[in-house]
Amino acid sequence: MNPYSLSRRAIALRSSAIREILKITAQPDVISFAGGLPSPETFPIEHLRNAAERVWQHQARTALQYGPTEGHAPLREWIAERLRAQGSTQVRAEQVLITTGSQQGLDLLTKVLVDEGSKLLVETPSYLGALQAFAMGEPRFHSMPSDDEGIMVDAMDDAMLEGARLLYCLPNFQNPTGRRLPLARREALVARAGQAGVPIVEDDPYGELDYGGQRLPSLHSMNPEGVVYLGSFSKLLTPGFRLGYMVAPPVIFEKCVQAKQAADLHTPSFTQHVVFEAVRDGFLDRHIPTIRALYGRQCEYMLEALERHMPAEASWSRPEGGMFIWVSLPPSIDTERLLEQAIDHKVAFVPGAPFFCEAPQRNTLRLSFVTVAKENIERGVALLGSLIRDALAAQPQARRA
Amino acid sequence: MNPYSLSRRAIALRSSAIREILKITAQPDVISFAGGLPSPETFPIEHLRNAAERVWQHQARTALQYGPTEGHAPLREWIAERLRAQGSTQVRAEQVLITTGSQQGLDLLTKVLVDEGSKLLVETPSYLGALQAFAMGEPRFHSMPSDDEGIMVDAMDDAMLEGARLLYCLPNFQNPTGRRLPLARREALVARAGQAGVPIVEDDPYGELDYGGQRLPSLHSMNPEGVVYLGSFSKLLTPGFRLGYMVAPPVIFEKCVQAKQAADLHTPSFTQHVVFEAVRDGFLDRHIPTIRALYGRQCEYMLEALERHMPAEASWSRPEGGMFIWVSLPPSIDTERLLEQAIDHKVAFVPGAPFFCEAPQRNTLRLSFVTVAKENIERGVALLGSLIRDALAAQPQARRA
Repeated sequence: MNPYSLSRRAIALRSSAIREILKITAQPDVISFAGGLPSPETFPIEHLRNAAERVWQHQARTALQYGPTEGHAPLREWIAERLRAQGSTQVRAEQVLITTGSQQGLDLLTKVLVDEGSKLLVETPSYLGALQAFAMGEPRFHSMPSDDEGIMVDAMDDAMLEGARLLYCLPNFQNPTGRRLPLARREALVARAGQAGVPIVEDDPYGELDYGGQRLPSLHSMNPEGVVYLGSFSKLLTPGFRLGYMVAPPVIFEKCVQAKQAADLHTPSFTQHVVFEAVRDGFLDRHIPTIRALYGRQCEYMLEALERHMPAEASWSRPEGGMFIWVSLPPSIDTERLLEQAIDHKVAFVPGAPFFCEAPQRNTLRLSFVTVAKENIERGVALLGSLIRDALAAQPQARRA
Repeated sequence: MNPYSLSRRAIALRSSAIREILKITAQPDVISFAGGLPSPETFPIEHLRNAAERVWQHQARTALQYGPTEGHAPLREWIAERLRAQGSTQVRAEQVLITTGSQQGLDLLTKVLVDEGSKLLVETPSYLGALQAFAMGEPRFHSMPSDDEGIMVDAMDDAMLEGARLLYCLPNFQNPTGRRLPLARREALVARAGQAGVPIVEDDPYGELDYGGQRLPSLHSMNPEGVVYLGSFSKLLTPGFRLGYMVAPPVIFEKCVQAKQAADLHTPSFTQHVVFEAVRDGFLDRHIPTIRALYGRQCEYMLEALERHMPAEASWSRPEGGMFIWVSLPPSIDTERLLEQAIDHKVAFVPGAPFFCEAPQRNTLRLSFVTVAKENIERGVALLGSLIRDALAAQPQARRA
């Protein structure tokens, strides 16, 4: 029996599948495609260390003191400048809120926009961490019709948009599917949401990780007054600093600042100073191409391995950027059961079901390719392929149809 | 008109008085007693830099990667060990959750324990940042009867405790009053709350900053199953790392871990590694006495200045630790109006009203003495004294009575 009265949202909380799996996959002999971790090979250790050295020498007292809730002013200015160069031409530093990872942006938006029972629109499937953050506001989730290219804007009727508190979208190399929303859908989505008065939350941790170097304009650049943009340094520099940011229209911005003050006062001053020192000289423009090249290569290894080892009944996404491939198996296969078998063979992935807020597709799974060596991608995918074939072979013909 | 539908809690949010004041007092020519900032003289810059150097050399990849939501295991173990040595003999590392400042502990507890309308018990007055964090859960605040020694446990009837979701208490050198809860009241409070099944949230950022070196046992040490303990490195090492921790009974702990995962995934790995390297060799036991000595000296300067310059109608606390003195003026004086005059004369403090969740005592104010040079304490207090005398002299005799 529980000795204390917990809140409704606490009672509803369940430990996440990913969280439990990550514990297992921390064992060194497991080939893990389960992580959402960037490759540590991409961490610019010496560059960050030198940046930190400058902070210790010249800014230690400021970097070790409490700072403004909005964040370190020069870093906010740098972010605004970069977003302007990327097409969000109206962004001012005063609209940039530094957050403790972009995950915190989701938490703040939940506090500011969501009451219990509020209607939220999310992709099918959607980023699990966002579903968890939003769930703290006890909303009603509505799953937007989506296909291999993302939200099917034309298939959404006005009733779906009406009264929604926010529309959450990860347009670039989405977690978990790896898909990217095409330009025409971006324009249509921004127009529809704008007409309905529904703010779009554009979560963009992978936007700069396009292998081909071809970026699409952000939703934010199309309608800055109607879109909250969430960015992150986690995939470009290091996730260990937990440094992200939000750009929001004035009313939402001001309320998020106040919610952030109540949440953690401000994001650590020290890491903000170090990151500003690390990026101010244009380092990212030299560094990001090396990440793109590595991840593009790793993705290719995995796509080749999938071609070689997956049965004909399987299909998968072919991402042009980011960190994930999404696999769909015949409906008879439950990937949570498959995972148990795979773990026995020291291979891990993330089952797809938790990424759906309704009608989970239990025959789907997410693979990350960025941290696994080429030969282990080959071995791990071969093993998964053979487990899937075995599962299919063991089933009566009728169920496979 | 507001273009978006905000949540109820966002609509209720007001920018905090302290926040607006801190902006003004950042001007270098202001003598500010308003801050809650530790003295940067106490930041062990070289020691932290050396600790960071060890992290860069030996643990960079781990310290720059995502980490467990619960926190860096060696740091959790170190904290548990220290708390055991301080009397909480049962604490295990598995109960220690690293938080992004102890402020985040308040945010997580709000999520896990508070529904809209839930009854929360707080001191009179209480820490403003806690009131802000709790307010995000839309509770009903109840102000516990309190005097110069803290909560008057004997004056609380059973009806006050009944049905409360939590009881929030800052027993050591409270923000804003500087008062410390005596041993007998601690024992009575823990017993009463335990009988009523109300978890106590013990917020203890200043517990080690006793000038005389005489510590009182924590509430947590008296009933670990009934008390959630919040600790912080902000006043002992640096607030710029935003590093705090929570120790909680199992059910609350597990829910807080899940809420934290949704809030910011985890506290920055890098700063956790650096702090562990900084404290593992017993550094705090050498360092804290220097903070105590400095703050004790500064407190003495301010108490002497108050004696010299305050009118007979004023009274103030005489703290034995921490960072704050609480001043009560005749009821006719509104300290928010007094602040406007003081700012005109380049002196700042925090008016007392925002620290009350009901029936604000508008004739109170908070002074921090830790960052102000001795001669400026003298000048600033002299100026405040003369403004108060002027205000009293300007009033009709009847209103002064």
